[in-house]
Amino acid sequence: MSQYRAPLADMQFVMTELAGLDEIAKLPGFADATPDTVAAILEEAGKFATDVLDPLNVVGDREGATRREDGGVTTASGFKDAYEQFCELGWNGLAKSPDFGGQGMPHLVAAAVDEMWNGSNLAFGLCPMLTGGAIEAIELNGSDALKQTYLPKMVAGEWTGTMNLTEPQAGSDLAAVRTKAVPQADGSYKVYGSKIFITYGEHDYTDNIVHLVLARTPDAPPGTKGISLFVVPKFLVNADGSLGARNDVRCVSLEHKLGIHASPTAVLAFGDGGGAIGYLVGEENHGLEYMFVMMNLARFGVGMQGVGVAERAYQRAVAYARERVQGRVVGAPKDAATGIIGHPDVRRMLLTMRASVEAARALGYVTAAALDRAHRHPDAETRKRELAFAELMIPIVKGWSTEMGQEMASLGVQVHGGMGFIEETGAAQYVRDARITTIYEGTTGIQANDLIGRKIGRDQGKALTAAVASMREVTRALDAAGNADLKAIAARLRAGVDALEEAGRFVVSKLQTEPRAVLAGAVPFLELAGIVCGGAQLGRSALVAAKKLAASEGDARFLRAKVATARHFADHCVTHAAGLRDTVVAGSAAVLALADEQF
Amino acid sequence: MSQYRAPLADMQFVMTELAGLDEIAKLPGFADATPDTVAAILEEAGKFATDVLDPLNVVGDREGATRREDGGVTTASGFKDAYEQFCELGWNGLAKSPDFGGQGMPHLVAAAVDEMWNGSNLAFGLCPMLTGGAIEAIELNGSDALKQTYLPKMVAGEWTGTMNLTEPQAGSDLAAVRTKAVPQADGSYKVYGSKIFITYGEHDYTDNIVHLVLARTPDAPPGTKGISLFVVPKFLVNADGSLGARNDVRCVSLEHKLGIHASPTAVLAFGDGGGAIGYLVGEENHGLEYMFVMMNLARFGVGMQGVGVAERAYQRAVAYARERVQGRVVGAPKDAATGIIGHPDVRRMLLTMRASVEAARALGYVTAAALDRAHRHPDAETRKRELAFAELMIPIVKGWSTEMGQEMASLGVQVHGGMGFIEETGAAQYVRDARITTIYEGTTGIQANDLIGRKIGRDQGKALTAAVASMREVTRALDAAGNADLKAIAARLRAGVDALEEAGRFVVSKLQTEPRAVLAGAVPFLELAGIVCGGAQLGRSALVAAKKLAASEGDARFLRAKVATARHFADHCVTHAAGLRDTVVAGSAAVLALADEQF
Repeated sequence: MSQYRAPLADMQFVMTELAGLDEIAKLPGFADATPDTVAAILEEAGKFATDVLDPLNVVGDREGATRREDGGVTTASGFKDAYEQFCELGWNGLAKSPDFGGQGMPHLVAAAVDEMWNGSNLAFGLCPMLTGGAIEAIELNGSDALKQTYLPKMVAGEWTGTMNLTEPQAGSDLAAVRTKAVPQADGSYKVYGSKIFITYGEHDYTDNIVHLVLARTPDAPPGTKGISLFVVPKFLVNADGSLGARNDVRCVSLEHKLGIHASPTAVLAFGDGGGAIGYLVGEENHGLEYMFVMMNLARFGVGMQGVGVAERAYQRAVAYARERVQGRVVGAPKDAATGIIGHPDVRRMLLTMRASVEAARALGYVTAAALDRAHRHPDAETRKRELAFAELMIPIVKGWSTEMGQEMASLGVQVHGGMGFIEETGAAQYVRDARITTIYEGTTGIQANDLIGRKIGRDQGKALTAAVASMREVTRALDAAGNADLKAIAARLRAGVDALEEAGRFVVSKLQTEPRAVLAGAVPFLELAGIVCGGAQLGRSALVAAKKLAASEGDARFLRAKVATARHFADHCVTHAAGLRDTVVAGSAAVLALADEQF
Repeated sequence: MSQYRAPLADMQFVMTELAGLDEIAKLPGFADATPDTVAAILEEAGKFATDVLDPLNVVGDREGATRREDGGVTTASGFKDAYEQFCELGWNGLAKSPDFGGQGMPHLVAAAVDEMWNGSNLAFGLCPMLTGGAIEAIELNGSDALKQTYLPKMVAGEWTGTMNLTEPQAGSDLAAVRTKAVPQADGSYKVYGSKIFITYGEHDYTDNIVHLVLARTPDAPPGTKGISLFVVPKFLVNADGSLGARNDVRCVSLEHKLGIHASPTAVLAFGDGGGAIGYLVGEENHGLEYMFVMMNLARFGVGMQGVGVAERAYQRAVAYARERVQGRVVGAPKDAATGIIGHPDVRRMLLTMRASVEAARALGYVTAAALDRAHRHPDAETRKRELAFAELMIPIVKGWSTEMGQEMASLGVQVHGGMGFIEETGAAQYVRDARITTIYEGTTGIQANDLIGRKIGRDQGKALTAAVASMREVTRALDAAGNADLKAIAARLRAGVDALEEAGRFVVSKLQTEPRAVLAGAVPFLELAGIVCGGAQLGRSALVAAKKLAASEGDARFLRAKVATARHFADHCVTHAAGLRDTVVAGSAAVLALADEQF
């Protein structure tokens, strides 16, 4: 049996050595984020993940969530209790504003803690993630009245939040949203329409659910510029904060999904009984803009799902590989009963999993720290630079880490051999659960287009050039360290950074003149960026580890493993960079050659 | 809705232009395999796949197979009827020996037809595949009495066959088999033991099931040299061929699996009621040898599962991408309602799927043709050469095509976006079904070890060198053709062949002295070999297509698409070759550096 254990040692290493936790704690508002407090938070979160969420993961998969006759939804056994404990312990408000009852911890700390919820129970973790998105939308753009009415309850977790974007004809293309919102005399709106794929759109964890809904007012211009954002609560809220009448929004059905069964995915009907009462967030016609601001965080959060599920798959695979004895290990004494972990190919798979998780974790946490600096740093120039870096990285964190998560979940099954295909083993659930992460909050293709079209296109590659320059510094330092492993990493990384720079130049130079040729290579470009940026973070890890080892500081066994994962990632993943560059730069001919009918 | 359509045009193209169907038809015993007959066979098989098997695929997934109280198994609705039709139409005996009622068609024809069963209904196709393996084991090594008793019924499909290898402690490691076989006075044996993961180990399609069982006789030496092979029928067979007493083998349970739900995976108990009567195949202690001969074909068959399921995933993805309208296509007129097939990234995904399927199909069929020549060619030298080529290719066909099949099934989900994650859409089933193909009949790691340790190690790379030489001819011909696409393919392929050759030299030179370093790169080597050998087959396709286009022969639309898929595969897949070589040649340091406890 494998039990989720939060990888505290690596989390601490990345936060402290790569993401600059000490510096973050000195930013205004983060005085509580001292190393000791953060260590205590991580430890307690790890316990909750191990003791409460991990055992429920398989229960949720088997039971799923069920829609009752009355339109309510019954979640899987134990989930409501777990949610209540989660809120009582204050986890829901960890990184939320103290103005509304939150603890105001940095994004960096939240990233690590969220990774634990995702690693132990992806379907559970979605609920607070979605609530967090809804909180942010109201906090950034809502009126004081909306904030006072909703935020304290949502930060405490007493009410959850949802994001209602998708309609049958409007998935990635929000310009096609048709849900209507008609202004009423009292300043509220009546909302009519149907939304699909609404995560935790209905459930039994809490008394109320706060839906954030994209809709069009009657005179709105067509397309994306005519979309407004509304708060539509399941129950209206009285002036004293108590719950009032049931609002006209109903769960019509739940989807039958490949994975994350414990997370109810609802079809919601708004206004079938006369109109759902909604309250405008911010101004009319600015809804999409508000969504985009919020989406950065949601996308980052999904990236951490990729990391979490891959870590969990790795832990289960290692546990199995230690226990399972099968075949003589080449090079081992005859008749030695060694687990399959001794076989070179099994070690290769395990190390690829571990190195990939560590790379994506490092990239994710460093990005979270950049968000913290972007929001809190006293120097405006620094805030701007950090924001540009974070915005450049977010589509990579989302797109690459989730693709990685899927591959690693599948590799975890492979380590188990035939047992991996048996549902009771538990490894297959991660494959099924992870499969949504490259799709929701924008597919990998959408992330790649965002990376190329917005993040690189809008500043002509300036932020990318800055990232490349800092990776070149890492390469030089690795080369100068005079250690064989570090030198080998440096050589791979240099080739990788070269490839990324060349591909980036191609993107910048051709995006306007040959957009289709550039977009045909968007996903390979994102993959290239993920491998190189992740590899560079592991290069930094190796530098820190080698330095500490030379100084006989820290846990030598852990630090040697950090060098090994960096080396492995360089030799098995960064090696793909040049090939990906070739695909980006010269791979569009056939993509664009075929007529639609020839497929 | 998407309906499976056998890709007859590409199947015919590959068989005729790449695999040499005309030549195969001239080999002794294959006189019936004329182009017209083969075309008629493919067309009829395609109809059966579309009309009967494809509609049942989702039924089988939802209902699965159920073990009854009495130990029997009820298969999903419609499967028994479909199986009966399948046998009545003669499909079960298509490539079986006419001596026992088969039609004696070449492996090449069977490969294409099997691809259709796999593409339309993987779980169904497993049953005849397993029967085929059992037939071969008896035909090659059984006594005349065994052959006469069992083969006519099995060739007709009246009785099915199973392969009983795995035990809880003996998965990939058959040396650990413990099932016992005790000789009886009448020449039969009594078999005692437990076997797991027995595909179609119990079902209701037929009156009898013929289990082929690996077991040890009392005095057998330990390890792989003490394993014998037995026929253990579910019902004993009377002298007149009628069914006699129920034998002492029982289905104890069925597994609850990620996919292929319609295929019952049984735990079988032999001898709990006094001993299951078994009949020795061939000689004692040669069981593993017999299994290995047979395994080549079974592995080839699983490779065709990879091709079939990827083709099906492609077809469904294309159908969805044509219908689904979402977002404005860059470069298309404003307000044009084009399907998402117009988006460059969607086209990239579809073309990657199609090119990969075509590459794996070509490699598979060419290998099947080599098996036909190896068995039937009048010239001994040719037989030897073709056998060496086929044996070299089989682990690649199995390992690479199934890894490809999984990736493409997942890419098929990605094309569907959120709808792909909903089970009713149908795309997710292919991901679940395909997940077993890289595991059973030997994991990808086992295939890679076979490729390196046996196929390359035993002849010091001679067969590989011959394959490389023939790929260099393809490269030269592409270069000489004076067509921009062909030249571009030539450049990629040349780099790929160089990489394969260098990696092969490393393998040959270090296998004895540094086996663990070589084995750490075994799977990357297999992937490299698959990409390059598959790319070379597509290079051949492009040559043929370009020649026909220049001569205004054939269907120009189809032939242009063949050039495009070859170009795409070169630009998006063969580009990975050099990176994989680097991993093979210099990627073992970290794999071997960590102690087991450091994982």
